[in-house]
Amino acid sequence: MAVNLQIPAESDVFPVAGVEIGISSAGIKKANHPDLTVFRLAPDSAVAAVFTTNRFRAAPVLISENHLSTDTETRALVINTGNANAATGEPGLQAARLTCNELGTLLKLRPSQVLPFSTGVILEPLPVDKLVKSLPDAVKNLRADSWFAAAHSIMTTDTQPKIHSTRIKLGDTQTTITGISKGAGMIKPNMATMLGFLATDAGVAPKLLKEMTRSIADLSFNRITVDGDTSTNDSFVIMATGKNGVHIDSVASPHYPVLYEALANAARDLAQKIVRDAEGATKFITVQVEEATSSAEALKVAYAVAQSPLVKTAFFASDPNLGRILCAIGYSGVADLDTTKLRLWLGDVLVSEHGGRNPDYQEAQGQAVMQEAEIVVRIALGRGDKSETVYTCDFSHEYVSINADYHS
Amino acid sequence: MAVNLQIPAESDVFPVAGVEIGISSAGIKKANHPDLTVFRLAPDSAVAAVFTTNRFRAAPVLISENHLSTDTETRALVINTGNANAATGEPGLQAARLTCNELGTLLKLRPSQVLPFSTGVILEPLPVDKLVKSLPDAVKNLRADSWFAAAHSIMTTDTQPKIHSTRIKLGDTQTTITGISKGAGMIKPNMATMLGFLATDAGVAPKLLKEMTRSIADLSFNRITVDGDTSTNDSFVIMATGKNGVHIDSVASPHYPVLYEALANAARDLAQKIVRDAEGATKFITVQVEEATSSAEALKVAYAVAQSPLVKTAFFASDPNLGRILCAIGYSGVADLDTTKLRLWLGDVLVSEHGGRNPDYQEAQGQAVMQEAEIVVRIALGRGDKSETVYTCDFSHEYVSINADYHS
Repeated sequence: MAVNLQIPAESDVFPVAGVEIGISSAGIKKANHPDLTVFRLAPDSAVAAVFTTNRFRAAPVLISENHLSTDTETRALVINTGNANAATGEPGLQAARLTCNELGTLLKLRPSQVLPFSTGVILEPLPVDKLVKSLPDAVKNLRADSWFAAAHSIMTTDTQPKIHSTRIKLGDTQTTITGISKGAGMIKPNMATMLGFLATDAGVAPKLLKEMTRSIADLSFNRITVDGDTSTNDSFVIMATGKNGVHIDSVASPHYPVLYEALANAARDLAQKIVRDAEGATKFITVQVEEATSSAEALKVAYAVAQSPLVKTAFFASDPNLGRILCAIGYSGVADLDTTKLRLWLGDVLVSEHGGRNPDYQEAQGQAVMQEAEIVVRIALGRGDKSETVYTCDFSHEYVSINADYHS
Repeated sequence: MAVNLQIPAESDVFPVAGVEIGISSAGIKKANHPDLTVFRLAPDSAVAAVFTTNRFRAAPVLISENHLSTDTETRALVINTGNANAATGEPGLQAARLTCNELGTLLKLRPSQVLPFSTGVILEPLPVDKLVKSLPDAVKNLRADSWFAAAHSIMTTDTQPKIHSTRIKLGDTQTTITGISKGAGMIKPNMATMLGFLATDAGVAPKLLKEMTRSIADLSFNRITVDGDTSTNDSFVIMATGKNGVHIDSVASPHYPVLYEALANAARDLAQKIVRDAEGATKFITVQVEEATSSAEALKVAYAVAQSPLVKTAFFASDPNLGRILCAIGYSGVADLDTTKLRLWLGDVLVSEHGGRNPDYQEAQGQAVMQEAEIVVRIALGRGDKSETVYTCDFSHEYVSINADYHS
């Protein structure tokens, strides 16, 4: 039961010139279920990506990063669900390399022009034979209009596909931005068990695209948390094919801020969709921290609140047990926090100030806000002028059920 | 449904000479329910305590700390449940001071000889009038043999009382150690929503007792986690009355290591009992991290594993989804961790080495260990010679139910 997750009509998902997608069922975890997705990119596309900070980085993450840094032209992506190919040691790396070799042969590309991605169970060998055997089928199905199907084929515990598609003008030139994402648990800052793929037919210089990708990740996929678990496989990719004839070489281009904003909006939407579809989520919660001395400090407080199981279960219960939020702020690690300067709002309701409860606060007001499906928690620290926003969800029975049952 | 939590028979709970306990029902949260506990200590007792690191420290924590540092002789403790008197601003401090004043008058003590403790809901005014009105009743009931009743009267969401009582010899002198604790949620290192009170009839020099209390807290109450929430009210107190005639002035005393060990065992048991009775717990999990470069590093890894909701739900399901443990180790923040040197055992079963799954590992082996109620996770980092152990529990439907319903 995703929270206000909008799925566009299939007719509103626009193909991106220069991007084709092929899908197949490799039977990696279950039979007759689309689990293999191939992207083919036109020559001269620019591709940039950011990856998980987890030290147990999955084999496909290591190989993708290596290929991006050693080859100048990425031309294909291959994504499997059902197995993360993580904590699989040297055989895992061999499986990821074999996948790139085989797809490279089929598409007449160097193996290093292929980026592999995997998502699913950790610590189990990837059945790479099944995967490789289905590659020809995926390649045969390559089509420009498969974005909607791809949003489905990369799902794991997701209940809904996550798609964002929009058209903007860069000068007079129509520009398409379409992207998909997946992820529902093991979601935490600095990349979650999430995959995000965003494409545009505008052209962007590779070095610039790299900077944009990192900066946009920090506004979107690096600002969500479901359970505080940063996965082994998180990857976010932006592809710019240049097929619409617009080429952006520097931040000085008049098109740069327009494209940046549109890509950032798309990434933010795709990231928020992951939270909206988070395992067991019934509420979408925005935690805004203001008046911090630094962005890092604001994030520390925001994540302490967003990740507290006690806060999250209170949201699930629509119970304004707001002392739990103050408690989380208190242990977030801001050593010299002056609690008498702090103010806490739930929606527009001032709940706490001067180190205690706002004397005018009525529990009925908190109750009313808690019953909404979209809730904003605003915290002013009274220390500086930096702010940060983090997105999360509540913690329900369903989360326990899903995660107790996922593996078996 | 606590996990293997042993409650001694009431006849095996030994009074501590120099300690009397009185209990009353103040009706702070519900009527006719013991919620007020008073300890009276004989003159010349030594008392030391450690308190929560949360910045939103509750009023009683601030007052207790102040009284311990400004008065040389603590003679009484007063503990209420049903309200934490936390995030209550200046009125909360006044309520805690009034409590000490009133009990001081009744017992003919200075207010600063009284330490107040509170546990319960945060951000709600303490109904101090009710508390004060019941103090005479508690004082009237002061008795040496009320430890068992006190273990009950300090409970909140606890399902079981937590008591440890033992007798040892210091030389030829029989020495009693009896203690109680409470806490079931909002439990995390550096003091949880937990209260622990430990008394002995041996005498210990005040300065030495202070050092012992801090060191013993680090072996016990600072090594448990249920949900990662460090509360506003955590307090751990050791009282040494000296009534058995033994006086320990320095670590050089032959009695010192004997008493230290017995007190540490008692504190460890009382802390582990909190985990055994943790909200919704069905399993007791010991996370041992070895071969770390420092104690801090070992703790970082141990807590990442012990606090991962994904790991904890897998334990609840008895599902050896062990990749989740590796994932948690990977994001724990050891930046230069070499995953190929790491080994992971579940019980005695080697699960992972060389960055992947142990080739000899069979899922049936993991399954067998997971079905036990007591599980040891052992992680060797291959980096150094420091080790740390942390105690936690699994994460069940029941945890969500309890915490979704607690406030209302």
